[in-house]
Amino acid sequence: MRRCVGVDLGGTTVKLGIVGVNGAVFDKWEIPTRTENNGLNIFPDIAASIREHVSEEELKSPEFAGVGMGVPGPVQEDGYTEKLVNLHMKDINVADLLSGLLGKVEVKACNDADAAALGELWMGAGKGYHSLMFITLGTGVGGGLVLDDKVVPGTRGMAGEIGHMTVNPEEYEKCNCGNHGCLEQYASATGIVNVMKRTLAECDDPSCLRGLETFSCKDVLDAAKAGDIVADRSVRTSMDYLALAMANIAMLADPEIFVIGGGVSRAGQYLLDCIEPVFARLTPLSEKKADIVIASLMNDAGLYGAAKLVL
Amino acid sequence: MRRCVGVDLGGTTVKLGIVGVNGAVFDKWEIPTRTENNGLNIFPDIAASIREHVSEEELKSPEFAGVGMGVPGPVQEDGYTEKLVNLHMKDINVADLLSGLLGKVEVKACNDADAAALGELWMGAGKGYHSLMFITLGTGVGGGLVLDDKVVPGTRGMAGEIGHMTVNPEEYEKCNCGNHGCLEQYASATGIVNVMKRTLAECDDPSCLRGLETFSCKDVLDAAKAGDIVADRSVRTSMDYLALAMANIAMLADPEIFVIGGGVSRAGQYLLDCIEPVFARLTPLSEKKADIVIASLMNDAGLYGAAKLVL
Repeated sequence: MRRCVGVDLGGTTVKLGIVGVNGAVFDKWEIPTRTENNGLNIFPDIAASIREHVSEEELKSPEFAGVGMGVPGPVQEDGYTEKLVNLHMKDINVADLLSGLLGKVEVKACNDADAAALGELWMGAGKGYHSLMFITLGTGVGGGLVLDDKVVPGTRGMAGEIGHMTVNPEEYEKCNCGNHGCLEQYASATGIVNVMKRTLAECDDPSCLRGLETFSCKDVLDAAKAGDIVADRSVRTSMDYLALAMANIAMLADPEIFVIGGGVSRAGQYLLDCIEPVFARLTPLSEKKADIVIASLMNDAGLYGAAKLVL
Repeated sequence: MRRCVGVDLGGTTVKLGIVGVNGAVFDKWEIPTRTENNGLNIFPDIAASIREHVSEEELKSPEFAGVGMGVPGPVQEDGYTEKLVNLHMKDINVADLLSGLLGKVEVKACNDADAAALGELWMGAGKGYHSLMFITLGTGVGGGLVLDDKVVPGTRGMAGEIGHMTVNPEEYEKCNCGNHGCLEQYASATGIVNVMKRTLAECDDPSCLRGLETFSCKDVLDAAKAGDIVADRSVRTSMDYLALAMANIAMLADPEIFVIGGGVSRAGQYLLDCIEPVFARLTPLSEKKADIVIASLMNDAGLYGAAKLVL
């Protein structure tokens, strides 16, 4: 069966797998991402690890479709990337680099969130759909847009970077990117905690999180789901901004389905209950609304999508 | 030479033309749009008018590529439209309808702003580019997104409807669509006048428009370009919201170029000077910025783009 290697290159771990054309995973393993020395070891490590799991004979076999890779940063369609901040690398063509290390095997690369989007479309919550917006709510907010079954990489590899869409031009606090009012400031794990701190400071209502020195995003979400009124109000504020961004995405690209992944999405149906009515109100131009669901592949989405790039 | 008929179906006029594969226009004419009786006459009128200008023999010739049509409303890829508000029509397949009236000639349809986007890409300000966001600033704000030389119609035909992206969640006035803070409320011709009225009311600074009972969008733009400080401040406020929407579009779809058309765009370079610095600030993720230019085909963009659908 036609198969390939999928690579999900993250800031601390590289996930690798041998994936068949039908989505079967024959082998799956991980190696650490060695970011020291400007990431000099990362691609040689990946190449060596692939050679350990895939014989030279198989690499050259017509059944071997190549290597697909998701990387943490903006990637252009040909594999070129201006910078991969978390890996301390810049101005390289990651596809050419890995291909060179593997004897010119076909390598395709895309952004990690784009890979996850493609993975969810192929084998996850977006199965059967053809256009999809994947949104990952983690430490930051990322996204991947798929239209006509194809990832939209964007001219500068920047497509899908919805964490830095401005959703609140009145915001006074600065985002890491230097601007004010980015979606990430409200809907990421960090953002959800910050909005909760503000909500607590702005009222005297009792809350199980009041007076705690620190609390996590999970604490806020658990409190909200358990009926804590202040936490519920706070999470709804965060999700209002997410719904606004999603409505703006619907006005521009009008995908069939939104798939929400990342650590925050573990809060499940409660999040969808916050998002749906606001999204529906903000998309008045069509009676039929896009579907909104929680991701189903979680940590494996990137691996599947990376594989799909070459399969 | 391979040729076709392009149709730009507007609320008051239908523009038609015979267009060759190289963009040459062999004939160009207009007929009124008869919207009475739920638009019953519109498509028969168009078909009759095409038959007057194109012989039966030519319609059946292999050199005749068919009819491409831009219509004022959301259209799905197969020609189906939920409703065309300005034409008082709903729940029809406009492509099938016109094809039926022309003896099964190939007919393709898209939204009028999408057609204009395609026209600018083919023969106008976007010539040589492959992905483009067209923004039309007229009575309302419309848009068309082209990726990989193809219009993105969207699942519900709603893609590119950026006039109803929310750019100011704090807005207290209602948009026609029922929401608050849509781009159209600031950057359309009507919006530019309304923002100017507000700006005048909020300050005592002298302005050539102060005390006038009514003024037009052109009055505001002319005053701003002539150095009227209040008008300049007001237009910059409007363009700030446009730049914010454009930055959000860049974060999602990352097109090569933005082309700004519609009546408002006649203000030319002055508008670009307002937009560019704000857009650059709001897109910090890439050093290379999208090009931003004024449309060049103006009223003919829709005709060219409609033709391109079938050529």
